[in-house]
Amino acid sequence: MTITLYELCGREDRRFSPYCWRTRLALAHKGLDYETVPIRFCDKNLIAFSDQDRVPVIRDGDGVVNDSWSIACYLEDSYPERPSLFGGEAAKAMTRFFNAWTDNEINFKAVPLVVRDVYEQVDDADRDYFMESREQRFGMSLDTLHATRDDKRPALQAAFAPARAIVRDRAFFGGDAPVYADYILMGTLQWLRLISGYRFLEPDDPIMAWRARMFDRLGPVLGDVAALDR
Amino acid sequence: MTITLYELCGREDRRFSPYCWRTRLALAHKGLDYETVPIRFCDKNLIAFSDQDRVPVIRDGDGVVNDSWSIACYLEDSYPERPSLFGGEAAKAMTRFFNAWTDNEINFKAVPLVVRDVYEQVDDADRDYFMESREQRFGMSLDTLHATRDDKRPALQAAFAPARAIVRDRAFFGGDAPVYADYILMGTLQWLRLISGYRFLEPDDPIMAWRARMFDRLGPVLGDVAALDR
Repeated sequence: MTITLYELCGREDRRFSPYCWRTRLALAHKGLDYETVPIRFCDKNLIAFSDQDRVPVIRDGDGVVNDSWSIACYLEDSYPERPSLFGGEAAKAMTRFFNAWTDNEINFKAVPLVVRDVYEQVDDADRDYFMESREQRFGMSLDTLHATRDDKRPALQAAFAPARAIVRDRAFFGGDAPVYADYILMGTLQWLRLISGYRFLEPDDPIMAWRARMFDRLGPVLGDVAALDR
Repeated sequence: MTITLYELCGREDRRFSPYCWRTRLALAHKGLDYETVPIRFCDKNLIAFSDQDRVPVIRDGDGVVNDSWSIACYLEDSYPERPSLFGGEAAKAMTRFFNAWTDNEINFKAVPLVVRDVYEQVDDADRDYFMESREQRFGMSLDTLHATRDDKRPALQAAFAPARAIVRDRAFFGGDAPVYADYILMGTLQWLRLISGYRFLEPDDPIMAWRARMFDRLGPVLGDVAALDR
């Protein structure tokens, strides 16, 4: 049976949500068939069946699951005969930490650098909502926020330090092959890549070398959306 | 056979190194007998047999291992019949990330807040060396550095965010029982506790509730050194 993934989309059907990418990569890792339904910010009625208003959401037969972490756990539990996303309960517990680290230390820090670029990529029907909600959140205009991004770039680059220390020594966070931790961080790099031409990391950053290895492995999944950069 | 742990000590035999605590807790987790040899900064000749000059170092029969992460891996590989520190290879890979996160995001950020307190706790024979080397590293006097610590405290507290997100929902990083990740971060809290009376975290911080659970479990190991706070 085919799983349905409801995921955020912008103009020209661009799929840029880092959290939806986590789910897309998890589905690919499990080798599960899936189809996607694009959801704009103004389409929240289309996921009302999930009793909340954020994507990703998956529908698998009668089952409905939202939140990328909950979806990963659902897929791991529901398809135990398929390749493991975590590699056991102890690894799952530590991957939960990696998830919280990426959300807190990378994604939240990257948002101010990228939010005006996101504004330019959302669907026309979402633009007013997006600008108003984000300017309210940050307490300033998106242009004002955007003007400071070069100043914030070194702190974002520095925030990658613990991840950099790992992929300098090994191919993937999972060792010889990617695991869900790789997909968590790759979701972030897909988001940055697809939403902005800005150089967040230097080309010789070990994180970029790891990203290249991910593309070598997962090009058909990662590259099916037009890229702004590379 | 008894393992020998060479660990940093300050005045009045205070054992404060966060990295040596990781090893001490790993040895206790494995239920291995060990004795400790106190090492002051000026005692580096006593660990020359390890072909480097930093503690922790362990001697186990003919084997010599230095560096807390290498020691944890050695103990896991050498005593596989004892309780696992990691819970498998996949979990070990993710724990390596947790180790890098703690070093980069917590310990390195905490040093400027605590370094003058460390100076006051090192052995008399180490004081001149310690002050000179640290003032050179930071490019300012320890008093000047110390004067800014209240300003740096919010950033240190914020840096705990991903760890806080985990122990708010579960007893330990390992789930129901501590694993090496718990010992990694507990080493940091032992260091802060034993070297300084400063309030790094608020009493109602979920990290402090986790620390209390660690003391409930591991009091005989954690509490065998006089505390400044708690």
